[in-house]
Amino acid sequence: MRTRPLKVALLGCGVVGSEVARIMTTHADDLAARIGAPVELAGVAVRRPSRVRAGIDPALVTTDATALVKRGDIDVVVEVIGGIEPARALITTAFEHGASVVSANKALLAQDGAALHAAANQACKDLYYEAAVAGAIPLIRPLRESLAGDKINRVMGIVNGTTNFILDKMDTTGAGYQEALDEATALGYAEADPTADVEGFDAAAKAAILAGIAFHSRVRLDDVYREGMTEVTAADFASAKNMGCTIKLLAICERAADGGSVTARVHPAMIPLTHPLASVRGAYNAVFVESDAAGQLMFYGPGAGGAPTASAVLGDLVAVCRNRLAGATGPGESAYAALPVSPMGEVVTRYHISLDVADKPGVLAQVATVFAEHGVSIDTVRQQGKDGEASLVVVTHRASDASLTGTVEALRNLDTVRGVASIMRVEGE
Amino acid sequence: MRTRPLKVALLGCGVVGSEVARIMTTHADDLAARIGAPVELAGVAVRRPSRVRAGIDPALVTTDATALVKRGDIDVVVEVIGGIEPARALITTAFEHGASVVSANKALLAQDGAALHAAANQACKDLYYEAAVAGAIPLIRPLRESLAGDKINRVMGIVNGTTNFILDKMDTTGAGYQEALDEATALGYAEADPTADVEGFDAAAKAAILAGIAFHSRVRLDDVYREGMTEVTAADFASAKNMGCTIKLLAICERAADGGSVTARVHPAMIPLTHPLASVRGAYNAVFVESDAAGQLMFYGPGAGGAPTASAVLGDLVAVCRNRLAGATGPGESAYAALPVSPMGEVVTRYHISLDVADKPGVLAQVATVFAEHGVSIDTVRQQGKDGEASLVVVTHRASDASLTGTVEALRNLDTVRGVASIMRVEGE
Repeated sequence: MRTRPLKVALLGCGVVGSEVARIMTTHADDLAARIGAPVELAGVAVRRPSRVRAGIDPALVTTDATALVKRGDIDVVVEVIGGIEPARALITTAFEHGASVVSANKALLAQDGAALHAAANQACKDLYYEAAVAGAIPLIRPLRESLAGDKINRVMGIVNGTTNFILDKMDTTGAGYQEALDEATALGYAEADPTADVEGFDAAAKAAILAGIAFHSRVRLDDVYREGMTEVTAADFASAKNMGCTIKLLAICERAADGGSVTARVHPAMIPLTHPLASVRGAYNAVFVESDAAGQLMFYGPGAGGAPTASAVLGDLVAVCRNRLAGATGPGESAYAALPVSPMGEVVTRYHISLDVADKPGVLAQVATVFAEHGVSIDTVRQQGKDGEASLVVVTHRASDASLTGTVEALRNLDTVRGVASIMRVEGE
Repeated sequence: MRTRPLKVALLGCGVVGSEVARIMTTHADDLAARIGAPVELAGVAVRRPSRVRAGIDPALVTTDATALVKRGDIDVVVEVIGGIEPARALITTAFEHGASVVSANKALLAQDGAALHAAANQACKDLYYEAAVAGAIPLIRPLRESLAGDKINRVMGIVNGTTNFILDKMDTTGAGYQEALDEATALGYAEADPTADVEGFDAAAKAAILAGIAFHSRVRLDDVYREGMTEVTAADFASAKNMGCTIKLLAICERAADGGSVTARVHPAMIPLTHPLASVRGAYNAVFVESDAAGQLMFYGPGAGGAPTASAVLGDLVAVCRNRLAGATGPGESAYAALPVSPMGEVVTRYHISLDVADKPGVLAQVATVFAEHGVSIDTVRQQGKDGEASLVVVTHRASDASLTGTVEALRNLDTVRGVASIMRVEGE
């Protein structure tokens, strides 16, 4: 075993960074044995150096992250700052100064992954980011290595623990959205400003990363259709139960039936209770992968948290260190297929639509005609009337999102339709 | 991209081999793009050359596997023959002649993994075997790479699809073992001689491989305690239901509480219905992994079959080809921890024991005394009496297997105990 240590610069020492530092110290012997050389924490860049950091030599702490990545003797930069800048500049500088990079930065990778990969490639260095999607769950490596000989057709997952906690709470207790969100906040599962989670931005970034890897194409955050889950109601859960379903916020990346394009989207959806994703509880994550040869696979585990994310970071750190010792690099970006990303209108799925309608004869016929005119075939209709008002629940066969949107617009123009109470996609059947 | 192809020798062209060959042909362009060079099927060694093999050039087919691996121009040997010999000799010869090896051979790796790894290491070549455990499920790579920075404490899985199909059938239909086995055989899930599956030999080989990787130690097939599932009865399933459990054949690899040793075992066990493994249906496999930092992870998918196994083989093939182009090798055997394997007696778990006893006063006191004398603490007892006969169902707290064995021997010597109807371990709580 080599005795000269590999030097690691840690950018960020919050929940994840401090766990990375802790494990590097407490498991130093194991890491050395697995890598073939010791690893040494050579510097820790933080914003607030005055904060006490248990177990970290204060002499290693600096506020000058740029100087740290420019030192020239750093083998691996571990970036757990998050956000776009200064993370992007620091990673680029790290490559220019000979370091490989391990990052947990989903936002940056979703927005600028191609440029970062290009920088890594030009410098002949590694860019690993297992921790960017679904925390501790090994997902990036299985997709880009284990399934490298297969053709992936769909990746569908629960990739945000906060929203899964909220939806699970609504499902199991009958709570409304706000009540469930309040509990998630009180328990630390939701941040004070939960927008990134509940509006689906976090999941959309992960969908972009997963789609790019799965389809060997470039998919950016802007390519991902996104709907949050703030409008999911207790009534939607009641409707879902009627269908033998529950509701999850799903990230869905699909290859079009003709293979010539892909789609990526995040939205709440009904899935059958028999689907493996339906039983993913609390803040857990799980990703379901369908491929030609392997069939259906699922990866399940904690999607966030300091220690789980650190596990993913350290797995990457070991791999990147091994590569450096071997004078090699791992698999880089694979975007050769260059499949275009189709707009949401081309997505084909099923829909569950609740309408408030006038309780009089002929309404169903009118509504059914609108569906037919837009080429959306109806699977089932359930009608409930009371005091001159009625509700109509329509579940469609598979149709394009564009056809459905046209249908709903036309329905809103019917005199007899008082309102569209909810539209929910039905997946995983 | 390099234009000179990498040459692949395929040993075996049965269910898995023919799928490997088919995908290599139909997905040649994708594989080339992902590897960075074309791959060419350079030879196929079979036992019966006369059998028609769709899509394989007859000129490539040979019965002389040894000559094929000795050719000297072969980059990668894909071994899907199975069994110990001639697979072992062919793999060793392949390394000696400069090839890397992808194998799906669980029996060989469980029995002789250390020697094969040593041969690969000496030749500076890769030995990959994702397909040896749990078919298409990415498991070897996540354990030895993604979790390389973590400390794995337990691997518990359903790693045999045949027995899971049988047990699932017994659970859902109330069928007995033989009836469920007959159906598995009729549907092609069980072989004509099902011994390797139902007696747990197949699962034990996988347990040895998983334990070795998870604990960075050498664990051989002989180190794995093994009980088959042929004696599981409909009555056991009824008992399990009473406990809120089902019964699965589990492979369990554990690090001892003091960290100084490991155990590996295969046996039927009750697990709570709320455990993620409980809902693994039919012939699917799933492996639950617990580690210090990542927490609880699960990997789920088809554990056997031509196409799923081929997916795993081809993922390895892509990785090994990339390594060859880079002049590097992937991670080899990691056995530095060299933890000893403790005997089954040292395993600590809970037990569900059904006794047939005389229906008279004092029996429970006698039985309870025997448990106490052996240091096995009782959690619950259920007593049912009828016509002078009675049954006593005892569920213990955690105890060592040795203590339990001693308890059962002493119980058999009690006059009032007519027989021990069943002993089943309770896991996953």
